[in-house]
Amino acid sequence: MAEGAHSNIHLALVHFPVYNKVGEIVVSSVTTLDVHDASRVCRTYGIGELYIVTPLETQQKLVHRIISHWKSGHGATYNPTRKEALLKSQVKNSLEDVVADITEWSGQKPHTIVTHARELDRSINYDAMRKELEKGEQYLLVFGTGWGLEKNIIHKADFLLNPIKGSEEYNHLPVRAAIAIILDRLLGIQR
Amino acid sequence: MAEGAHSNIHLALVHFPVYNKVGEIVVSSVTTLDVHDASRVCRTYGIGELYIVTPLETQQKLVHRIISHWKSGHGATYNPTRKEALLKSQVKNSLEDVVADITEWSGQKPHTIVTHARELDRSINYDAMRKELEKGEQYLLVFGTGWGLEKNIIHKADFLLNPIKGSEEYNHLPVRAAIAIILDRLLGIQR
Repeated sequence: MAEGAHSNIHLALVHFPVYNKVGEIVVSSVTTLDVHDASRVCRTYGIGELYIVTPLETQQKLVHRIISHWKSGHGATYNPTRKEALLKSQVKNSLEDVVADITEWSGQKPHTIVTHARELDRSINYDAMRKELEKGEQYLLVFGTGWGLEKNIIHKADFLLNPIKGSEEYNHLPVRAAIAIILDRLLGIQR
Repeated sequence: MAEGAHSNIHLALVHFPVYNKVGEIVVSSVTTLDVHDASRVCRTYGIGELYIVTPLETQQKLVHRIISHWKSGHGATYNPTRKEALLKSQVKNSLEDVVADITEWSGQKPHTIVTHARELDRSINYDAMRKELEKGEQYLLVFGTGWGLEKNIIHKADFLLNPIKGSEEYNHLPVRAAIAIILDRLLGIQR
């Protein structure tokens, strides 16, 4: 199903369950630009599948419309590199559905990898994760939108990555930037 | 004027002169989200000043409106982390004006650093650039929007960085993603 340098590594952009500003569990809205940016970054780093996760039917329709506009609508001829980026994007109801989908077509349950803005006990560093990924099993990188993934998703994840440290205490990266930085740390060719 | 871990390193997001899809030199439009994302990423990595470069008065007004909305308008109380990120953002007419501004307040002409999607003769790698940055002089990272910086800006730059390599031939990263990845490569704390 998937081709590319890292066709065994997948990414889920999760809109539920996530926190809002005041710590409530909510469904965040799909941002068109997140879908485009995540698609392009995934394509650049040779990621297998990109899953946009939302349980809301209206939001799922929005994502389908974005994808089909660029895949086969006017956008496909207007901007072919965008078409290419979106070819491997799809929508799922829940993270469980994503895991089930990968398990079904690959024959292997993916290891889930989660990132968190704060450092947690069992967080591992990026070099350790790079080594783990070299085993070539199925992996699913999970990114939360809004104010972050609901804590049970964090607790149940197979791997927790250290938070991204810039140079300061300020730590409010857009999820688009976090995806770009983390894929580069894990899969980029440093030169 | 600037504080932070890398207050001697600045970033310019250039909207003119850049290429459009068919290779003409144009003024690209300012994207609100580029300003927000670049601000947050610069703040995370402790960058000195962020300059948004456009010669168009209407576009300059738009950027001023974005910055002042979040700095002192309703947005400042609604989203204080965004306010903090935008505190060091400003607008200039041209790259020459940016260089003149830094030279004036720092007393030193900044070295310009440019990135390019293709590999060029005198491109250097990220480790070499990290070492150069440790000298602590004034530096200006220059990013082009649209289909990339006009070639004279590239030729006149003091340093050229190697293109970002993911794992594949596909190379169409949004400028937002390129900024995040390059600041992380040059200034991130790898862990």
